[in-house]
Amino acid sequence: MNGQLVVQKFGGSSLAEAGRIRHVAGRIARARATGANLVVVVSAMGDTTDELLSLAAAITDDPNPRELDMLLATGEHQSATLVSMALHAQGVNAISLTGAQAGITTDASHGRARIANVEPRRVRAEIEQGNVVIVAGFQGQRLGSDAGGQPGETTTLGRGGSDTTAVALAAALGADRCQIFTDVRGIYTADPRLVEDARQLSVIGYEEMLELAQQGAQVMQVRAVELGWINGVEIEVLSSFEDAPGTLIREDPLVEQRNKVRGLAHDRNVAKVTLLAVPDRPGIARSVFAPLADAGINVDMIVQNVGHDGATDLSFTVPRAELPRAEKVLAPVVAEMGARGLSTDPTVAKVSIIGAGLHNAPGYAARMFGTLADAGVNIEMISTSEVRITCVIEEASLKAALDALHGAFELERPDPVDTEAALPRAG
Amino acid sequence: MNGQLVVQKFGGSSLAEAGRIRHVAGRIARARATGANLVVVVSAMGDTTDELLSLAAAITDDPNPRELDMLLATGEHQSATLVSMALHAQGVNAISLTGAQAGITTDASHGRARIANVEPRRVRAEIEQGNVVIVAGFQGQRLGSDAGGQPGETTTLGRGGSDTTAVALAAALGADRCQIFTDVRGIYTADPRLVEDARQLSVIGYEEMLELAQQGAQVMQVRAVELGWINGVEIEVLSSFEDAPGTLIREDPLVEQRNKVRGLAHDRNVAKVTLLAVPDRPGIARSVFAPLADAGINVDMIVQNVGHDGATDLSFTVPRAELPRAEKVLAPVVAEMGARGLSTDPTVAKVSIIGAGLHNAPGYAARMFGTLADAGVNIEMISTSEVRITCVIEEASLKAALDALHGAFELERPDPVDTEAALPRAG
Repeated sequence: MNGQLVVQKFGGSSLAEAGRIRHVAGRIARARATGANLVVVVSAMGDTTDELLSLAAAITDDPNPRELDMLLATGEHQSATLVSMALHAQGVNAISLTGAQAGITTDASHGRARIANVEPRRVRAEIEQGNVVIVAGFQGQRLGSDAGGQPGETTTLGRGGSDTTAVALAAALGADRCQIFTDVRGIYTADPRLVEDARQLSVIGYEEMLELAQQGAQVMQVRAVELGWINGVEIEVLSSFEDAPGTLIREDPLVEQRNKVRGLAHDRNVAKVTLLAVPDRPGIARSVFAPLADAGINVDMIVQNVGHDGATDLSFTVPRAELPRAEKVLAPVVAEMGARGLSTDPTVAKVSIIGAGLHNAPGYAARMFGTLADAGVNIEMISTSEVRITCVIEEASLKAALDALHGAFELERPDPVDTEAALPRAG
Repeated sequence: MNGQLVVQKFGGSSLAEAGRIRHVAGRIARARATGANLVVVVSAMGDTTDELLSLAAAITDDPNPRELDMLLATGEHQSATLVSMALHAQGVNAISLTGAQAGITTDASHGRARIANVEPRRVRAEIEQGNVVIVAGFQGQRLGSDAGGQPGETTTLGRGGSDTTAVALAAALGADRCQIFTDVRGIYTADPRLVEDARQLSVIGYEEMLELAQQGAQVMQVRAVELGWINGVEIEVLSSFEDAPGTLIREDPLVEQRNKVRGLAHDRNVAKVTLLAVPDRPGIARSVFAPLADAGINVDMIVQNVGHDGATDLSFTVPRAELPRAEKVLAPVVAEMGARGLSTDPTVAKVSIIGAGLHNAPGYAARMFGTLADAGVNIEMISTSEVRITCVIEEASLKAALDALHGAFELERPDPVDTEAALPRAG
């Protein structure tokens, strides 16, 4: 292969109808015209996946996961063939492949399969033939399920799986870049719909991006970022509608020395649960969290205050939609352990500052708490990681908190790193 | 395998929405409850195939055939998974397979592939596991296109290909019966919408059925009937909406002795072309029909009158929609060969009597012509085959002709063969 190899991924909203598909094909054609070799991963058109789920729901309450995967995978087959046809119409050689044809094998967890291996020999052969290779995202073939030339079982990777397909293919092919085209222009210092001064970053480290994604920034799947990090794949997030530079996610050698807050994340989908005056003895945590785990309720931040008089308050957060179920699961637990009661608050939100090295610079935590206090925002819970400090606050204070923190950490000021890191783009 | 093995095929109108899919699943479940082993071939839901074609047409005027096949095949993948889910919901073990998974390989003619081989080992294995096997019709995998465990290229068999899939699977599996569920109750002595006395046949021979299909009866694909004939597959045509006996298509040992008109067929999609005073010399026929063939125009009946004065009239029929193109192709030909002119009539129709052995019983032709004359119907052209006599008449006389012929050949009277042949049904 001569020339750069770039993997591009287009999401469903970029492919929602024929006109958008032709527009996407135009972008691909322009990238191809620069001499780049291209592998393009596509999601299903618009709401296709939801429509197929509704169709299955009209048939049965409990669709078989193997059949559901075969059904859902058709959405990406369709969009892949249509993008290929649109490229042909623009005079670009192209071929569409299913996930299985592209050599993506997975474990047997239908509906949320993990990629086990990528053997992209067909992809390479098609690139050698001069084709832009369009790969149906979100899917693979169950490892070892092929039967002597007869195709095996189709699996799907779960919501947002096309990001993962793109990064996995980029890793397996040793691509120069993985471009994720989306409906935003890139990664911002804060949500631009809430914070007026929010500024697009031109570069961000994997770990920072991971925290942003986990803290509610919906731009990219956590899993795809992790996969990129592990495999050192440079990921660029950019707009499929505008022809503007995006944000590059990569290992940043300057990060360690920088010790700077890079962005704010927030999440409104939070409820707080507090068990009051829980007896302070071994095994209590298990007796609370084991039943929640059994019920499939995802517990996030957990804070246990220092006990006094042999009892302690235990607080944690759950996704807001899970609160009624959590209350139901916990009622008998509270009674059994002899706690004083259960208090819940569905109107909280999380706000986080994110930046590599925050952990080793205690000054940032102090500045965050001080800024929130000055803005009159009460902190209800705190948790930290290597690259993040998160506070739970009243949801009503969220905008005030974000504005205050954005100003306090001077996020509106361009970072010198941002300009230095603006690499040539293949789009 | 214990018990009867039956292949069933359900068309798109039987699967047009979730309610109908559940209804079809109910029929399958009842057949399964009798102890039969079942392989069920399905078409795409309702108008899905047309919708996918429209989507492709919105992208490009000239969709790549390989991509179009991959796109269209998704329609049957979807219906197969949904029927499987609907069976699960009714407590019936079932699994859906793509055409490729069912072991159907084809030649490389995308869009109109011919089945090259059926290796249904996966189908057999699933039957052994106690599953009803739902197979996506209309499709296969291109012979030799699999690449070491990675799936090969999807092909489609052309319109109505699901009938062909069903008959081919029945042949390969040595099934006891192939049931084609459709929106009519079976094969009739004439079109019941036109002829009040039309009567459903309980049995008909392959050759008779083939002629009926070729002469415009839309119930089953010609190709599927041929395949059934060659492989001796007993085919039953029956209603997917009513629980009523259908018509059995099979080699009928009584046919040779019977020498009886079994049914009438008609076709309105006909136009007549006459070249007037064509010079009567060798090579003239080729100079007329070669350009039509090159233009992809399907010429049907050809009649050349005995020449006089070194010239002759040459008449033939073409599909009505092709008449304008045929006139355009023939204009220079007529001028070049020095014929007197071209006369066309787009308002003709074909009416046929069909029955094995007609060829050897000249009395039937005489009775047909006499009956039409008595009814005041003018015969414009005649052609015959082993089992058929066809007359081209004015379209306006069609109903009168059908009524007169139906009465003259006593088609309203039940045939003793019909009752004798009513075999037990697995539905």
